[in-house]
Amino acid sequence: MSTSDDTPMNGAESLVKTLLDSGLDTCFTNPGTSEMHFVAALDHVPGMRSILVLQEGVATGAADGYFRLAGKPACTLLHLGPGLANGLSNLHNAKKAGSGVVNIVGEHAVSHIELDAPLTSDIEGVAGPVSHWVHTSLSATEVGADAAKAVHAANVAPGQVATLMLPSDTAWNEGGIVAPPIPADPRPAYDEAALESAIAALSGPESLLLLGGAALDEASLKTAGRIAAKTGCALLCEWSNSRLERGVGRVIINRVPYPIDQALKTLEPFKRIVLVGARAPIGFFAYPGKPAILTAPGTEIIDLCKTSQNITSALAGLCDGADAKDTAPANVADAVVPDKPTGPLDPDGIAAVLGRTIPENAIVVDEAITTGRAFFPITAGAPKHTWLNNCGGSIGYGLPVSIGAAVACPDRKVLALVGDGSAMYTIQALWTMAREQLDVTIIIFANRVYKILRGELTNVGVSNAGPKAMDMLSLDRPTLKFVEMARSMGVEATQVTDCEALELAIETGLATQGPYLIEAVL
Amino acid sequence: MSTSDDTPMNGAESLVKTLLDSGLDTCFTNPGTSEMHFVAALDHVPGMRSILVLQEGVATGAADGYFRLAGKPACTLLHLGPGLANGLSNLHNAKKAGSGVVNIVGEHAVSHIELDAPLTSDIEGVAGPVSHWVHTSLSATEVGADAAKAVHAANVAPGQVATLMLPSDTAWNEGGIVAPPIPADPRPAYDEAALESAIAALSGPESLLLLGGAALDEASLKTAGRIAAKTGCALLCEWSNSRLERGVGRVIINRVPYPIDQALKTLEPFKRIVLVGARAPIGFFAYPGKPAILTAPGTEIIDLCKTSQNITSALAGLCDGADAKDTAPANVADAVVPDKPTGPLDPDGIAAVLGRTIPENAIVVDEAITTGRAFFPITAGAPKHTWLNNCGGSIGYGLPVSIGAAVACPDRKVLALVGDGSAMYTIQALWTMAREQLDVTIIIFANRVYKILRGELTNVGVSNAGPKAMDMLSLDRPTLKFVEMARSMGVEATQVTDCEALELAIETGLATQGPYLIEAVL
Repeated sequence: MSTSDDTPMNGAESLVKTLLDSGLDTCFTNPGTSEMHFVAALDHVPGMRSILVLQEGVATGAADGYFRLAGKPACTLLHLGPGLANGLSNLHNAKKAGSGVVNIVGEHAVSHIELDAPLTSDIEGVAGPVSHWVHTSLSATEVGADAAKAVHAANVAPGQVATLMLPSDTAWNEGGIVAPPIPADPRPAYDEAALESAIAALSGPESLLLLGGAALDEASLKTAGRIAAKTGCALLCEWSNSRLERGVGRVIINRVPYPIDQALKTLEPFKRIVLVGARAPIGFFAYPGKPAILTAPGTEIIDLCKTSQNITSALAGLCDGADAKDTAPANVADAVVPDKPTGPLDPDGIAAVLGRTIPENAIVVDEAITTGRAFFPITAGAPKHTWLNNCGGSIGYGLPVSIGAAVACPDRKVLALVGDGSAMYTIQALWTMAREQLDVTIIIFANRVYKILRGELTNVGVSNAGPKAMDMLSLDRPTLKFVEMARSMGVEATQVTDCEALELAIETGLATQGPYLIEAVL
Repeated sequence: MSTSDDTPMNGAESLVKTLLDSGLDTCFTNPGTSEMHFVAALDHVPGMRSILVLQEGVATGAADGYFRLAGKPACTLLHLGPGLANGLSNLHNAKKAGSGVVNIVGEHAVSHIELDAPLTSDIEGVAGPVSHWVHTSLSATEVGADAAKAVHAANVAPGQVATLMLPSDTAWNEGGIVAPPIPADPRPAYDEAALESAIAALSGPESLLLLGGAALDEASLKTAGRIAAKTGCALLCEWSNSRLERGVGRVIINRVPYPIDQALKTLEPFKRIVLVGARAPIGFFAYPGKPAILTAPGTEIIDLCKTSQNITSALAGLCDGADAKDTAPANVADAVVPDKPTGPLDPDGIAAVLGRTIPENAIVVDEAITTGRAFFPITAGAPKHTWLNNCGGSIGYGLPVSIGAAVACPDRKVLALVGDGSAMYTIQALWTMAREQLDVTIIIFANRVYKILRGELTNVGVSNAGPKAMDMLSLDRPTLKFVEMARSMGVEATQVTDCEALELAIETGLATQGPYLIEAVL
């Protein structure tokens, strides 16, 4: 259905109508003066759900999470260069996750830019490093067409960041024209020339099928499981995945570990690796005296299908070639309920509690960093659920992404697993969760230290860290009181220090309508 | 005193030593893996005070505030592109304020960048729009010299943003060389060719001397007051000023108003304007049907001295030319204690309370937005104090800048006046205030709405805003509880709803060692 009609409209109205016609109906925003006509258009043009955030990093992270679950972009509405800048690090994460996002960024009126007012900045310059597509509208008549192009760019597989600057006069001037949607491009074909050698490479335990991106949906994993069963190859996925389907009845797939030594050890046995939707494994960081390429020297790597290409066809081609179509998939998860853990919280106990409590159809947003490394194996036999990772490494993604996931899937429970250090980058997200009454159960793992950095000090060769260095990695002075913080933003909360209380608290959170925060003190 | 010696050192150590030798001794940081060698060097090289923040916007805002009071740059230490990105909007504000900042941004090891790891991004691209100087060190031997150049760039008048990327291998490799400080460039001369016409222009009430930047220190204002007394010209300063000295015995100077209609009315009488450290007045935003240039058509504008040029000489030249050296300055502030206000809080009542309570030598950080428009006139007769504005318009500057001011001036009281909407962009600053026990009394003006935008809706021509639009400007669902929020980060706090309680609370805050937050509910 088109919203187009013959009523005269301004540029902002043509923008909102075009976005709606192109299938976008959700906007995460923190607007300012230059965005007021877009804001006003929300009332004149019905259909756009607009969600207010207190800091723009929440908006861009929410758009990332929304895309991962909805499979289509949301838009953000941001105030000039600084508003975009506040959202930049979560756009970095979205870009690395392959999430489609349409940023609408207000700009001064065209005639005002040259005056270099206080808020004037090089917005296209700010947008460039995190955007696949950047454009500034030049007149009200062009805004609609520009918006359709932005949505088209955001929908390029697997999903792209498109940033459209809207000078305020192009928003308020009359003459807006609604543009028709531009059909999405089909995914490009995978590297069919490499199929034969890929099939040949997948043979026995020295061969690995490494998956990423859309290869981690339920059907693709099932195909991969058939291939593994038939060929004897191993299955792994990347450390960071935009969206991974897990739980009972699905094919279990483990991740290449983050810690460099574990990653090297995990990958060492493989002489042949076929990539489908994944990239060849590299270290998250460089470490002195350690390789950055994680595969053993001489490993044959066949890049069959990039994450932007037709992953379904690639897996079907492999499956046919291996004659595995009728083979029962390997590694299908049976239901496993871990024994009830007791006593003080530690990563293994927390993992067992999660394995016992993750509900059917849950969305797990994982930013638990060090505490979370134990979570993955023991939760494989939980009811069917979706697992989201941070693909760009910029911390502060967990709470915003949870907002987007909850908005996209109001009928699913979201479980946000977040380290205390990570939570504080975008803690303002709690307020939006309360405002929208989103069904998110948040567990903050309070070890009161940037624990990952304690390990990284050693990894990068610092052997004699002194008290000043350790102080820069410590969060215990003063203690962050997450229960009070949550309540100050309208989110009910509790603190737990042992496994039994954590399990009860998660059950309470899942039974609660709206957000609920659990501070788990380690 | 040089820290240089013959001990072999790595790049990170040469960096810290060079920064110290160049006069920088304060670092605001949120480090990550790639910055661990810099962090370790803080212990090996004594003298650098390192202050941890929970979100990088706090670090960059703190550096801005530090420069305004210390008159020299601090450095920030930020984690890769996303860490810099989180600090970008307050760097925008610092750039517009003319504050010198040295950003040290970790980068992957040079060999790792090409692998496009999750955290890889175009850091120079991110830095560019907010930096006057950008450079990536290429080897450990060059880091020291690069650091000296960065400090030199940051010290270019009035102050610049310099961003140095430090690949982790240049930090951990041996071969660091401490570089000597590069002497700061003198300020360029003002436009001496324009002096004669500037002197001629300043005559009677139709002439205006418009000041900004360093022209707002006590001595410069006194000179300007002499010129005004002798010539009969008016004195005004820009709406946004990096640092303005005020209070009893100082020359009173009012600001060009922010609201466009008031600004036009204020400037309308002037036929001749001489600029010293200020720019010709323009609108903060463009508004349909209203001029962007705020001066009346045909006004003669003489740009005598830019904010980067020798302002002291320019004012001395004007004073000499006007033969005003022995004239008593006009507009010197007498001590005025406003009558004690009573009853519910409103902007006028709050302003009177401030006029009664601002202590001698206080630093007032003003991000009170709409509530704060009444504060300026009635506080002119308070004891001597310093007033800081947001020069870049990116909100969320107040709390971070207060940190920097308090760190620079441990013997002065800081009074942070912040709107509730503004406070939430960088609320994480409270934790650092508690951690460092900074003497900041924070007043949050809780009107529970982005009130400035309610006005701006009308200003940009929206006459029929509906409920969805109004909802995007509202902060009352749920109510933010600032007292609980402050306590959750270790800051003692209280809530007030009337003028008497506000006055008592400010007195309590000023008598408290360390931070104290007052939620003033309007």
